[in-house]
Amino acid sequence: MKGLGYQTLVEFYRCDTAIINDTLRIKQLLLTSAELAGLTVVEAVVHHFSPIGVSGVVVVKESHISVHTWPEYGYVALDFFTCNSAYSLTTAIDFLTNELNAESTESKTLVRGEQIHDLKRENI
Amino acid sequence: MKGLGYQTLVEFYRCDTAIINDTLRIKQLLLTSAELAGLTVVEAVVHHFSPIGVSGVVVVKESHISVHTWPEYGYVALDFFTCNSAYSLTTAIDFLTNELNAESTESKTLVRGEQIHDLKRENI
Repeated sequence: MKGLGYQTLVEFYRCDTAIINDTLRIKQLLLTSAELAGLTVVEAVVHHFSPIGVSGVVVVKESHISVHTWPEYGYVALDFFTCNSAYSLTTAIDFLTNELNAESTESKTLVRGEQIHDLKRENI
Repeated sequence: MKGLGYQTLVEFYRCDTAIINDTLRIKQLLLTSAELAGLTVVEAVVHHFSPIGVSGVVVVKESHISVHTWPEYGYVALDFFTCNSAYSLTTAIDFLTNELNAESTESKTLVRGEQIHDLKRENI
């Protein structure tokens, strides 16, 4: 299925609570997963929230990665948003599953801008 | 439907190409839409890409907003990710539709962490 954007939503269940509450660790994992996926990091912003939880976004040349963690549930929601379907995310997702010590992981990919992919570009 | 995160995916079609290629304008629109949705901005990162297109992410206290624009197609993909369902995004989406001069807008909301919402919190 062709589109303009490809958004892979990943759910990590029963992760290590200490790891997913560690801002610096999450930032490093995001940067490494970007590299494993072949994405070029432009800027990374990661924040810790009180009392627990981490939110992070990485703008990559190819779009973005976002992450939100719920240490109290051992749960992590992560998105890879890329501008084409050429990127293989399997290695990055496997890496994160291992590093987060997740018991299980689920992912699905949505196509964004599907309706207009075949429209003619405007001359701008 | 209850979950840990609520992710509203919004598609804006046939927008004004100059507006959606204007980095500062997009940043301001993101900040205003966050305010209209009742979200508290922590940090905003917006980049312009060569030759055209803007990518932006805003970390908000309640999770994040992301945006990617394709001026050559007049298309914008925007996400609101919030940590509960109490936020009304209608005003923000209507505001963006108007400001981007979009001919049409579609949105849908996904629930993240749905499976574990009713699990007991861990004592951490």
